[in-house]
This record gives sequence, structure tokens and C-alpha cells, in this order.
Amino acid sequence: MESLSVALGSRSYPIHIGTDLLARADLYQAYLGGGSVAVVTNPTVASLYLGKVKQALQGVRMVEIVVPDGEQAKGWQTLEVVFDALLAARLGRDGLIVALGGGVVGDLAGFAAAVYQRGIEFVQVPTTLLAQVDSSVGGKTAINHARGKNMIGAFHQPRAVIADVATLDSLPDRELRAGLAEVIKHGLALDEAFTRWLEGSIDKLVARDRTALTYAVRRSCELKAAIVAADERESGARALLNFGHTFGHAIESGAGYGAWLHGEAVAAGMVMASELSMRLGNIQKADVARVRDLIRRAGLPVAGPALAPERMLELMAVDKKAAKGQVRFIVLEAIGRAALRADPGVAPVREAIVAALQ
Amino acid sequence: MESLSVALGSRSYPIHIGTDLLARADLYQAYLGGGSVAVVTNPTVASLYLGKVKQALQGVRMVEIVVPDGEQAKGWQTLEVVFDALLAARLGRDGLIVALGGGVVGDLAGFAAAVYQRGIEFVQVPTTLLAQVDSSVGGKTAINHARGKNMIGAFHQPRAVIADVATLDSLPDRELRAGLAEVIKHGLALDEAFTRWLEGSIDKLVARDRTALTYAVRRSCELKAAIVAADERESGARALLNFGHTFGHAIESGAGYGAWLHGEAVAAGMVMASELSMRLGNIQKADVARVRDLIRRAGLPVAGPALAPERMLELMAVDKKAAKGQVRFIVLEAIGRAALRADPGVAPVREAIVAALQ
Repeated sequence: MESLSVALGSRSYPIHIGTDLLARADLYQAYLGGGSVAVVTNPTVASLYLGKVKQALQGVRMVEIVVPDGEQAKGWQTLEVVFDALLAARLGRDGLIVALGGGVVGDLAGFAAAVYQRGIEFVQVPTTLLAQVDSSVGGKTAINHARGKNMIGAFHQPRAVIADVATLDSLPDRELRAGLAEVIKHGLALDEAFTRWLEGSIDKLVARDRTALTYAVRRSCELKAAIVAADERESGARALLNFGHTFGHAIESGAGYGAWLHGEAVAAGMVMASELSMRLGNIQKADVARVRDLIRRAGLPVAGPALAPERMLELMAVDKKAAKGQVRFIVLEAIGRAALRADPGVAPVREAIVAALQ
Repeated sequence: MESLSVALGSRSYPIHIGTDLLARADLYQAYLGGGSVAVVTNPTVASLYLGKVKQALQGVRMVEIVVPDGEQAKGWQTLEVVFDALLAARLGRDGLIVALGGGVVGDLAGFAAAVYQRGIEFVQVPTTLLAQVDSSVGGKTAINHARGKNMIGAFHQPRAVIADVATLDSLPDRELRAGLAEVIKHGLALDEAFTRWLEGSIDKLVARDRTALTYAVRRSCELKAAIVAADERESGARALLNFGHTFGHAIESGAGYGAWLHGEAVAAGMVMASELSMRLGNIQKADVARVRDLIRRAGLPVAGPALAPERMLELMAVDKKAAKGQVRFIVLEAIGRAALRADPGVAPVREAIVAALQ
């Protein structure tokens, strides 16, 4: 097992990465304040891994809360089910929530922990690659609203993250690849050396080599943890983690939510962002080729869906009004070094989209 | 106008107290980050005071969100109405929420601000005495759940509190008196000199003398602000503000929510807590008489509803499970000096209840 720390003063917390961690009582022990524990999970994950977590929590008063699977479950209705169960179990302020599952469970259970009795503690036990390298680290929690994803939420840091890469064995191929998109994002935006390691290890990762996966998760978490420590509430550097996301969100939305996985949209979005970076004179054609090659080898799309470029621009302008009238792009200044670029102008953005549409 | 500060480091904020403040643009100016403003209020308050706030916000992109009146509106359904309106108005992270109304509006709009897009800023404009001296100060926001009041919420400090005592002119007598209960609580729990001032000024306060009301609001806010600054998240000293509340919550719940106003229940609860303090040897019979006298002169109940003492004990035991198996009482060590007392034993608690039941 490897452990690293997210440095946030009195709210610092460890991320444990390794295999066969779920059943280890010692990893949960420090966060049991004498109160009850509520494990929030979904049916798929429960059937595979809940038994192990229960083993770790033997002797602790525990309630299981199984919520439906999938992004459409990440709303208030499901949250109400969680609150009902927490209150029925008389979970107090000294209680602990354990979020066992992927991004949906983590975001939902984390938000429940953020607002239940004005905030109780929680531990993230991510069981998808996407959750292990991204959503479980950094304290962003949220639910969706009919008018937009993640519109209602809170910054609420977990007490610990327990990332067991053995749980990735049960992950469908498509979800594994979608998780790799965020791993690649961490390399491209923040670390040239890690990008080179990825270029050399991408086949192993796709083949689920545990040693390679452990390193990929670890390095991703390290990179993200450093950013979060410097900018917990996304007023500056944390925006760099949105590399590929301005285009990606438009792709997800334009294709109809659910048609593309988030990671797939981010993958094609990173190609567009790289094409844009080249058009702004930041990087070379060879760099864009490296980006495309790595994403393709990960089994991810290098082009967006069959949408008119005008429609993509329109979808991106939705974000515009939220950010003081400017569309903000994260561009590459080099492989491994992202930067914020406000309003690069419509022409290069349009060209970048055209260069990476089906 | 008088101003004081709640000292919370980078999140410190001013409380402005005076008359005719609602229409003063300068009091809102500093918090307009260039984004839109959403004023959340209810029909009663809107008809009386929304015009003045709109005057202050002339030239600012503004949306009015009018939510139903009353405690039963303080739930998720109403919150959804608020979120819908915020998203329809495309309020961004640089937007500001203004909570114009009593405790329900303040708690609800404050919680909306706490979780909308993971938190935006808000200003409290309390228009009831209870909200001016208590709920608008300290950052506690919440909504109710079918299984309990204020069960879902967040600590989210406002950027400013604008307490205009002229708005108290329109407050029904019963609500004015309920607000005085919390003023009296601040005196009894925290400040003997303020208690003496209240004993000399209670008739003026009941008669809505503005000078007296301004001082009562100001001193209450000062006392509460000092406690909040020392213990923002209620891990210690802030519990002292719950003087009268352990009994009071049982009264509210036993009488059926809504039958007693919160302040009325707290008033009778403070009598019980004083009776308990005497039985524990902390204060004298004459002190209890002072408490009873002040509460009676404020037009507030000095005895709980027609409930069996056993039922009261049962209702108080509900809190028990939430607090590691101990019922915590705030008792008086003297008039103006409250202290925490865990598990004083059933006998004196029962006697205190009996001494103050109808």
C-alpha cells in the first residue's frame, strides 16, 4: 500500500492506494468517532464489495444505504432516500458516511455528508478508475439539477480516500478507458514526465496491469492533490484540471447526456484543446500528434460526435454567461504545462473543433 | 446606524443596525461582484419591503424569488423553486443572494447560497426580531426534513447583515415577544449587565420603542458575534446559546410543531433550565424569580404546555442518542453566566419540569 497526503491544514487527509484494502479495519478505525457508520453504495458495487467493507467494520453499528445506479440517480430524490435512512438510523453528528462506489456514489454521498446535520465526516472508497484518480480527491461533491449537472453541491473534504485497484478488475472496459482519459489529462496538463511514462505504459494500463494501474492512480492523485492544496475552491490553479472540459462538456451535452461517458468527451475535448493550443502558437503539430496518439492507444475517441461546429460553439457559450461574459479555455503551453486562456477568439476555436469532429 | 463585526478572519462580516437601511445602496454595493442579484423573500415581506430593496439595487440585474410563508415552506420543495429561478436567471458563481425576511427566508435562502454551484455569497436582511438577534447572525443555514427540523443544512456565513429595526413596526405582537425570548436568553446566558438593562427596559421593548429595540438588537448581536467568532461550528462555547433549548425543543415538539412559536417554547424552557440550575445548587430561588419575572413581563409563557413530565423526559431523550448517549443541559451558574452540564440525573430534571408545567 502507498499513501500520500492532501495538504489542507487541519483538514489534511491521506489517500491510500493498493490492493485488498477494502477489508482492512485499520484504514477506517481513526474515523470512527464512536457514532454509527452509514455505507452508501449501489446494487452492482454492493454485490461485489460491500461484504469486504462490512468485514472491516465488524463490531461497529452500521447501516447500509443502497441507491440506484447511474447518473440519473444523482439527484435530490436519491438524496432524500439517503437522508431518510440516516435519520431512521439516528446517525448523529459523530456519525461517519462511507461512500463505496464510483463518481455518482461519491458525489452524492459526499454531498449528503456535507449537509446532513450541517456536515458530518465521510470516507471515500472509490471503485472506478475515474473516481480513484479524479472525483474522490479534492472535496467536490454535488448532485444534478434538471437544468444542469453538478449545479447543487459543496466543497467538503473526505477524512480519507481508500483506493483499492483490485476493484478495477470488475470495471467494464469502456469505463476503464474513460478513467484513463483523466489520467492522461493529469499528464498532459501538469507533468511531461508522467506523460512520457503513460506513452510507455498505456498498453499495460489498458490490459489492467496492477502495478501500472497503482502507479497511474498514485501519480494522478499526487498531481491533483498538489493543485487542490494550492487552490481548494477553484479560484485559480485548480481550473487547470479542466483541461479538455470546456469542449468536453459541450460534447456531452450535444450528444445527449449519457450517450458519451464523461471521460470519452474529455478525451475528444483534449484533442480539440490541443488543436486550439497549436493554433494559438503554443505548441507544435508534433505535440498534437502525441496527444492524439496517446488518446487513441487508450481506446478513447480523438474526435467529437457528429455535430455542426456552430452547435458546439453555441453549447460552449452557455458557460460564457456564468463566467463574466468570457469563455475560458485551458490550453497547453507545452506537453505537461497547461495555462488559462480567456477569450482566444471564435476563429481558432472553430478551427480546432472542425479539426476534431467526426 | 451602528455597525459591528463578526470576527471570522477572511470571512469576517459587518452587522448594520438602525432605521431606514433597506433602501441604502451603499450597504449592498461592496457585495455586488458584477453578477446578478437574487432577492429571496415571501409574499408578506415582499408587499411591505421589496420596493425599498429594489430601490437600493437600481441598475443591477435582479431577479425576485417569492417563496411561500411559514415554517412548512422551509423544505426541499421550496428550495427547488429557488434553484429553478436562480438557474433560469443564469445566476453565476459571482451572483449574490439577498435574503429578505424572517428566519425561514434567511435559513432557506442562506442554505440555497451555501450549495448553489457549490456556494455563492449572500446578504441577510432580517425583518423579524428573532432573525435580527439570532438566526441571521452566525452562519447557520438549514431546511427541515420530515423527520426533524433543520436536519439538512450548512454553516455558510453571510457577507453582511442589514438589520433595519423599522421593519419591526409591521411585526405581529406575538412574534415580537417571541423574538424578545432570544434577547432575554442572551442576557441570562451571557451578560448580567444586559439582563439588568432588560429588566429596566422590557416595557419599552414591548411597546416597540425604537431606541430600546436598536440597543437590544445591537447588544444581542454583539454577544452572539463574540461566541460565533470563538466557536464557529458549535464544538464548544456556541452551545451556551442553546440555553433553554433542550427543554424548549421538547415543548415545541410535544405541543405539535407550530402550536408554540420557537421563542415561546424557549421562554418556558429557560424557566425550566433555571429551575434545574437552582436544584443543582447553582443559583438561588430569587434568581429563578428574576428569570420568571422578566419573561412574564415580556408577555411570554413561564410554563410549558399541558404535558405529562414523563412525556417531556421522553422527548428530551430523543436528542440523547444524537449526543453520545448524554442529554446535555445548559444551566446557569449565575444570572448572565451559563455553563454546560452533561447528565445532571433524571430527578432534578423531572422536578424542574414539574415546577414549570401548566
